[in-house]
Amino acid sequence: MRLRHKPWAKEYIANHPQYVISSPSKKDKSWKELFNSDNPLYVEVGTGKGKFLDNMSVKYPHINFVGIEKFESVLVTGVQRVLQTKPTNLKFINGDVNDLLEYFNSEEIDRLYINFTDPWPKKRHEKRRLTYKSFLSLYEQALHPHGEIHMKTDNQGLFEYSLESMSQYGMKLKNISLDLHNSDDEENVMTEYEEKFSEKGQRIFRLEACFRAK
Amino acid sequence: MRLRHKPWAKEYIANHPQYVISSPSKKDKSWKELFNSDNPLYVEVGTGKGKFLDNMSVKYPHINFVGIEKFESVLVTGVQRVLQTKPTNLKFINGDVNDLLEYFNSEEIDRLYINFTDPWPKKRHEKRRLTYKSFLSLYEQALHPHGEIHMKTDNQGLFEYSLESMSQYGMKLKNISLDLHNSDDEENVMTEYEEKFSEKGQRIFRLEACFRAK
Repeated sequence: MRLRHKPWAKEYIANHPQYVISSPSKKDKSWKELFNSDNPLYVEVGTGKGKFLDNMSVKYPHINFVGIEKFESVLVTGVQRVLQTKPTNLKFINGDVNDLLEYFNSEEIDRLYINFTDPWPKKRHEKRRLTYKSFLSLYEQALHPHGEIHMKTDNQGLFEYSLESMSQYGMKLKNISLDLHNSDDEENVMTEYEEKFSEKGQRIFRLEACFRAK
Repeated sequence: MRLRHKPWAKEYIANHPQYVISSPSKKDKSWKELFNSDNPLYVEVGTGKGKFLDNMSVKYPHINFVGIEKFESVLVTGVQRVLQTKPTNLKFINGDVNDLLEYFNSEEIDRLYINFTDPWPKKRHEKRRLTYKSFLSLYEQALHPHGEIHMKTDNQGLFEYSLESMSQYGMKLKNISLDLHNSDDEENVMTEYEEKFSEKGQRIFRLEACFRAK
């Protein structure tokens, strides 16, 4: 993703604490309290400009959504978006996925989305890929035992890597699509990237994975 | 595969017992004795006209290869082929994969190839797919604990299914390629189908899987 420098982004985000938690210490309540709801909790890592979660929060009003994004200059667009749509079931974290367990309790997350994340194609950057085993271990701790990971990408190399990494970790895979937009998944909600890439005729890959067989 | 009726095929195959074993009772020796060699044993299920194994047997003279094929009218082409090339490290079984454990001892096979097998796309035919869990169970028994399954197909649905079935079974996946002919696998030996399909520009999918992590 191209990052534009937006010097005002940090302050803008800080001024909207009802939508963005910017450090673990700012989160003084449980997510159930923050949402004032017992509904299931779905989290997206690397949420970017927030379009996917904004659409999801409208489509699924009985799910609470949290998007994690490291870069203020990107997340700020998501904040501007929710200031328009005013969802009650969507919040953001301006933070790093590495700190997942500081934001969520053990087994607190019901579903985790990994959408179009950086493929880090060079072998020496393997540890940065969000499906590297150290990240899977974080997800395993934060996910409910029957929770699921849903992943989409247009990057073939990242998808091949993720299938291998997840299966080597012992995860179970299901609902794999190697060409999502030519399959019959009518439930699909597109991300910003997905719209762009699929317009170019690029193949979209998708999988679901869990740590235990149901 | 289109099957042409060849009434002479059965007799032709029976006349070449040095290359084809047509029932378990005809196999009176171990594979090591039959090949007169301690080399590793690689087996292809649904070997068709035998081109892949014939090429492999030339490329890898220190591996013993066995191809299993149910249909005489197809296998007969493989027999005609080896009567020309006269490999000492390739034999066929005219039999059914369901009888795998009658042809091979427990843990006897070092590698198993599943190349371009029938996708059986209808859900009610799932049990016939050669990566259905009952087949995986057969393979697990016949394969050495560190043995590998190598699979190739042009059929996206079968490949998606196989990734799911293998991971649900607990297998570990590696060296996945979602577009084999545009990857850098220089070791690839093409099957007859593969040549035909890839000439049409069709994507070839490939995976390796094992039952235990090494």
